[in-house]
Amino acid sequence: MSRFFSKKYSSLEAYTPGEQPKDMKYIKLNTNESPFPPSPKVTEYAKAESEKLNLYSDPESRVLTQKAADLFGVKYENVLMTNGSDEILNFAFMAFCDEDKGIAFPSISYGFYPVFAELNHIPYKEIPLKEDFSIDVEDYCNIGMNIVIANPNAPTGLAMSAEEIEKIVTTNADSVVIIDEAYVDFGADSVVDLTKKYDNLLVTQTFSKSRSLAGARLGFGIGNEALIADLNTIKYSTNPYNVNRMTSAAGIAAIEDNDYYMNNCKTIAENREYTKTELAKLGFETLDSKANFIFTRCDKINGGEFYLKLKEMGILVRHFTKPLISDYVRITIGTKEQMDALLEATKKILEVK
Amino acid sequence: MSRFFSKKYSSLEAYTPGEQPKDMKYIKLNTNESPFPPSPKVTEYAKAESEKLNLYSDPESRVLTQKAADLFGVKYENVLMTNGSDEILNFAFMAFCDEDKGIAFPSISYGFYPVFAELNHIPYKEIPLKEDFSIDVEDYCNIGMNIVIANPNAPTGLAMSAEEIEKIVTTNADSVVIIDEAYVDFGADSVVDLTKKYDNLLVTQTFSKSRSLAGARLGFGIGNEALIADLNTIKYSTNPYNVNRMTSAAGIAAIEDNDYYMNNCKTIAENREYTKTELAKLGFETLDSKANFIFTRCDKINGGEFYLKLKEMGILVRHFTKPLISDYVRITIGTKEQMDALLEATKKILEVK
Repeated sequence: MSRFFSKKYSSLEAYTPGEQPKDMKYIKLNTNESPFPPSPKVTEYAKAESEKLNLYSDPESRVLTQKAADLFGVKYENVLMTNGSDEILNFAFMAFCDEDKGIAFPSISYGFYPVFAELNHIPYKEIPLKEDFSIDVEDYCNIGMNIVIANPNAPTGLAMSAEEIEKIVTTNADSVVIIDEAYVDFGADSVVDLTKKYDNLLVTQTFSKSRSLAGARLGFGIGNEALIADLNTIKYSTNPYNVNRMTSAAGIAAIEDNDYYMNNCKTIAENREYTKTELAKLGFETLDSKANFIFTRCDKINGGEFYLKLKEMGILVRHFTKPLISDYVRITIGTKEQMDALLEATKKILEVK
Repeated sequence: MSRFFSKKYSSLEAYTPGEQPKDMKYIKLNTNESPFPPSPKVTEYAKAESEKLNLYSDPESRVLTQKAADLFGVKYENVLMTNGSDEILNFAFMAFCDEDKGIAFPSISYGFYPVFAELNHIPYKEIPLKEDFSIDVEDYCNIGMNIVIANPNAPTGLAMSAEEIEKIVTTNADSVVIIDEAYVDFGADSVVDLTKKYDNLLVTQTFSKSRSLAGARLGFGIGNEALIADLNTIKYSTNPYNVNRMTSAAGIAAIEDNDYYMNNCKTIAENREYTKTELAKLGFETLDSKANFIFTRCDKINGGEFYLKLKEMGILVRHFTKPLISDYVRITIGTKEQMDALLEATKKILEVK
């Protein structure tokens, strides 16, 4: 820390992204990326833009924004595109929370929520999950705070129904409810449609997971026109040209090729159920994930050891040292071949025990 | 504004980017873009990355950061890459300024500085320029505030010497001095070397102008290791994967092709001097710009009218309605052909008067 760093950040602990070791070639099942490449049209559109980079991108990303609005059945004014969904989440924490209006979220969820709150000096409440790791809807009803919930939640993969979310939205009519649908395309119900009915609901999504664009950085928010206008005020006060030309073009193509991506999601869901079944045969208990990852544990080996042994064998998964979940590992669902390699390695690890 | 927007932003006025009209094809001399396309290697590298977009970018942009460090003769730890230089500027306002430590900048300069200050609730002081639009170094000595100065300044194009900047840095040893070198490659002196000597100097630059990458969004900061560490804390608390794969690759190639870009800068400087000379023949007074734009006025036509007439004739320049400078227009320097078109149009406009 320099002697110039503002005191207001002296206790700020930044987010730690998943590890990206370069010492060898790993099977990467640790950052919930898609194993499927972007569609040919995505690379075609992005390549065409790479020849026009001397000109600024459209700060409104107009073509992309309209395409997304059409895909989701909302209006242009209901959509804001950002440099990954971390950016729209930060914008929402900035715009709608302050010292007088805090935010609540599950105590086990995306590790960035408390960081956004700390960064912006927002009081926050971490609400414990139930013993089975599910979210108790009643805990979020009538709480008079803004709320952010990942649905499906991470790293559990457990999803809430649209009815449950609607109950939270309606019982907190004077607060903003943010539903972070980063993983929704793998089997959970989206509440994008509810944004037409409620002015206090913001849905965020990303092209990183289901649309194979983690490396392009593209996220977005959908909500009432006035919410989106506020988020635009923040955007135009921080980084107006936040989405570059190539990423914008890639996003347009990804929407045009929607069927390709939704088919990939189906394959991932099949591979997820297959992996879960096979792990059960080896003695693993796995939560009922609706995401592109599973959260699993085994009596025979603790989470930290399992993670390390897999890493030694060239397979990266994610382990969290947080109490309550340190027994578990989070495994991204890849191709059938990758999951077979994981299962094979797991068998070997358990045999030696 | 929604009923949920935080009161802390109720008076926030966002930045307005240069207009990007789509009604017809313009000669765009309004946003200081380069008229030269990115080098073939840039498009080659970016295209290769477009096929790997399903995988996250390296949050550290390690290869790019090291390349930039080598180019500028500093260490890896002295460099931070961002999503355009607006991002590094905002990070610096966040990290080093607060309610107790304000920031000073010229009253006529990059219009985003007051927006960053308002956004972050930082007290700020706008220091008037001298009558000739130059910066009076004495105004910035021993002022006990952080300082941000664009060098060359915008929209004037006037540059300070390295000695003048060093004086500001040494007389404000307990404050951070940010030198925004967005336009430095077109003829001004960079103070990157001074970052090795002073722990309170942060230099920001961009690939948008001299390196033909406005549409890719790539900026960076160079400074003392501790300053950069603080800026990284902000980055990892807002958007760890801030630079996407394609842009990172484009930046690497742009550094490898440095000669191509520095030659383009020479051509721009030549076209600038040519345009200035020709405009003088038509009765224009032009400031001594060291940037890729000129700031010019003519007794025969006011700035607003000149801007509108040029627009009618398919040429976009930038006009600011701010008092003191409303007589002027800012004209981006493009190719010789573009400048001839501008001169031709200007002649026609003046003939009719």
